[in-house]
Amino acid sequence: MGSVISPLAPSSYPAMPVIDGVRLATAACGVRYKDRTDVLLVELCEGTTVAGVFTKSLTASAPVLACRKALASGKARALIVNSGNANAFTGSVGEQSVARIMQKGGEIFGCNANEIFTASTGVIGEKLPDDKITAALSGLKEKLAAGQWEAAAKAIMTTDTYPKFATRTATIGGVKVTLNGIAKGSGMIAPDMATMLSYVFTDAAIPSADLQAMLSESTNTTFNAITVDSDTSTSDTLMLFATGKAGNPQGGYDDFKKALHSLLHELALHVVRDGEGAEKLVTITVTGAESSSAARAIGMSIANSPLVKTALAASDANWGRIVMAVGKAGQKADRDRLSITIGGVSVAKNGDADPSYKESMLEAHLKGRDVNIQVDVGVGTGSFTVYTCDLTHRYIDINGSYRS
Amino acid sequence: MGSVISPLAPSSYPAMPVIDGVRLATAACGVRYKDRTDVLLVELCEGTTVAGVFTKSLTASAPVLACRKALASGKARALIVNSGNANAFTGSVGEQSVARIMQKGGEIFGCNANEIFTASTGVIGEKLPDDKITAALSGLKEKLAAGQWEAAAKAIMTTDTYPKFATRTATIGGVKVTLNGIAKGSGMIAPDMATMLSYVFTDAAIPSADLQAMLSESTNTTFNAITVDSDTSTSDTLMLFATGKAGNPQGGYDDFKKALHSLLHELALHVVRDGEGAEKLVTITVTGAESSSAARAIGMSIANSPLVKTALAASDANWGRIVMAVGKAGQKADRDRLSITIGGVSVAKNGDADPSYKESMLEAHLKGRDVNIQVDVGVGTGSFTVYTCDLTHRYIDINGSYRS
Repeated sequence: MGSVISPLAPSSYPAMPVIDGVRLATAACGVRYKDRTDVLLVELCEGTTVAGVFTKSLTASAPVLACRKALASGKARALIVNSGNANAFTGSVGEQSVARIMQKGGEIFGCNANEIFTASTGVIGEKLPDDKITAALSGLKEKLAAGQWEAAAKAIMTTDTYPKFATRTATIGGVKVTLNGIAKGSGMIAPDMATMLSYVFTDAAIPSADLQAMLSESTNTTFNAITVDSDTSTSDTLMLFATGKAGNPQGGYDDFKKALHSLLHELALHVVRDGEGAEKLVTITVTGAESSSAARAIGMSIANSPLVKTALAASDANWGRIVMAVGKAGQKADRDRLSITIGGVSVAKNGDADPSYKESMLEAHLKGRDVNIQVDVGVGTGSFTVYTCDLTHRYIDINGSYRS
Repeated sequence: MGSVISPLAPSSYPAMPVIDGVRLATAACGVRYKDRTDVLLVELCEGTTVAGVFTKSLTASAPVLACRKALASGKARALIVNSGNANAFTGSVGEQSVARIMQKGGEIFGCNANEIFTASTGVIGEKLPDDKITAALSGLKEKLAAGQWEAAAKAIMTTDTYPKFATRTATIGGVKVTLNGIAKGSGMIAPDMATMLSYVFTDAAIPSADLQAMLSESTNTTFNAITVDSDTSTSDTLMLFATGKAGNPQGGYDDFKKALHSLLHELALHVVRDGEGAEKLVTITVTGAESSSAARAIGMSIANSPLVKTALAASDANWGRIVMAVGKAGQKADRDRLSITIGGVSVAKNGDADPSYKESMLEAHLKGRDVNIQVDVGVGTGSFTVYTCDLTHRYIDINGSYRS
């Protein structure tokens, strides 16, 4: 894992500011991996509000179920995440594991257990050795420090090839606030609510109901707009914590909302850029659909088509496969008004190949790292943009050996 | 194409009997491929009845649209199929190509043009050189003969690695009738109505309405129960022609129906066995679902999951991915009553790993050519069986180079 860094990884990483009220620590607890950090502890100051969105999977993991329940209070004091084991499909034993971690967290921070949020990511169906995590918590608490963002992003990686973190600032009522976010995810990425794991922290003072509304809205066009392999995880979790230390007045969140959206967009694209085996970032914009949800369905049909993805991996201008994917999407489309543009070149229009199109016009674009596809289906005004990657041999290598 | 024969290909092929009223011929017309047959002509005697099911794709090919229309008469005199070019997304030019082929067929056989059925399979979005086909028809008519089944199956291949044909007999009112079928298909296989192309011929005398009812019913659990890569073709076509030469009485089709179902099942499994890159045939039976269509959706979610398919390719008992695929299927399932059996070994039950399960118990089964997965989702009595193959490096090789 992580031995070959994605060719789509950024060439430099952002400097991450401190978020007042947030301290982090990581440790190597041997949950599954050897010789690497695999547990993250984040302490949140008293008064921190919280919002979250989670997988819609019917086989959601034990931590997801516990987080959903704990979210009711709107308050958070700590976050504990492990990699290597998803604690999913582990029955009541798995639920007890989460309860023990929450209990121990509550003891250490002197708070109610339901102010402790946990997550687990890794193999499904194996028991979580929660004793390794609970035994490490006191030591982790001693190590808590304000500037550990890259280490935090690394501790939650599984098949990721690079750590994912980003930062933004915004003003609320004239007061400057900061947002820091981390994410992980590389395979089993077709979020139906959020990516596998992403956490955003801010020093803004915002009530949990407002946080939740902004988070849910932004998720739709960021994490819910990406797919690597059409497989939706049992563990998808996106949470937003607000410590309130910036002391801003309430209301007037427009700038914050914009910054949040921009931050989530960057983190979501990192997940695609680090998609298992990815060699190209593919942006697919569908216009002219009946509604934005119809446009999303058509975009996802293209983005999840293995035939489209293997053609893109081969830099092959086989646009007939895009036509096929539109046709199978089950959404209204007018074959005789369908148009396709790739890298700004009109390939097809009005239900036929564009007479001016020649394959040589696409060669350079398709060989690049960023491929842009625009499809107009000619029936309405709905539009949506989805992001995916190509399907390469490395995807098969990674997923034939992930557990070993 | 076809250079490496699927390891799942049959070790021997059936001897195909003559069907009275059916004569076949093939030719190398250079539609796209060089040095191989690519056009099939089938003559059907006067009085032949016909039924068909076609892709539900909104970007269906020009021949599919024409066949649907021509089916209204219930009569057929000839079938003309080319490989190498799908004549899909070719606008009005593509429709004119089909019309010219039907017209020429009508002239040659002295019948109405709408008794000529055509199909095209291959690359999408390129103009069909129909002149190459129409120019060859008179010569093909001269070569028509009764026993050309294997040659017919070969002429319609694209990425197929072996020709697909099968035969059955049945009795209707004490009279013996014969059914012969051919099929092609290897990639872009997630039939939403029928596989890419399959044709069944019988000497039975059956009115077209009865033929259609039997064909539609059998399709649901045969061609509509298979998937190679989740991509639904623009050209899916399954047709059934009955020459009437057996002279059987009308009614009493039960035995014929059984034989038809068995024939379609064999042909559909051939398509999976020749799935692009396939090294294992995977049978997935879902029980305990709310309905059979819910069971089918869950089965397809498992069968189309790239994570499940890559694990199977690696003979890896990563059954947590099956749990994931059940969870994302969007159908009712009870996590705490979910059970999974692989190769007869109980892996998980009641929402947890089976305590008696050890990975070594699955090793031999997962390394074999036939993998059987049974999933009970614990909420009802609906069941369905789907068939798929694993996802290997060869799928990517084939689909990065299909057009070249």
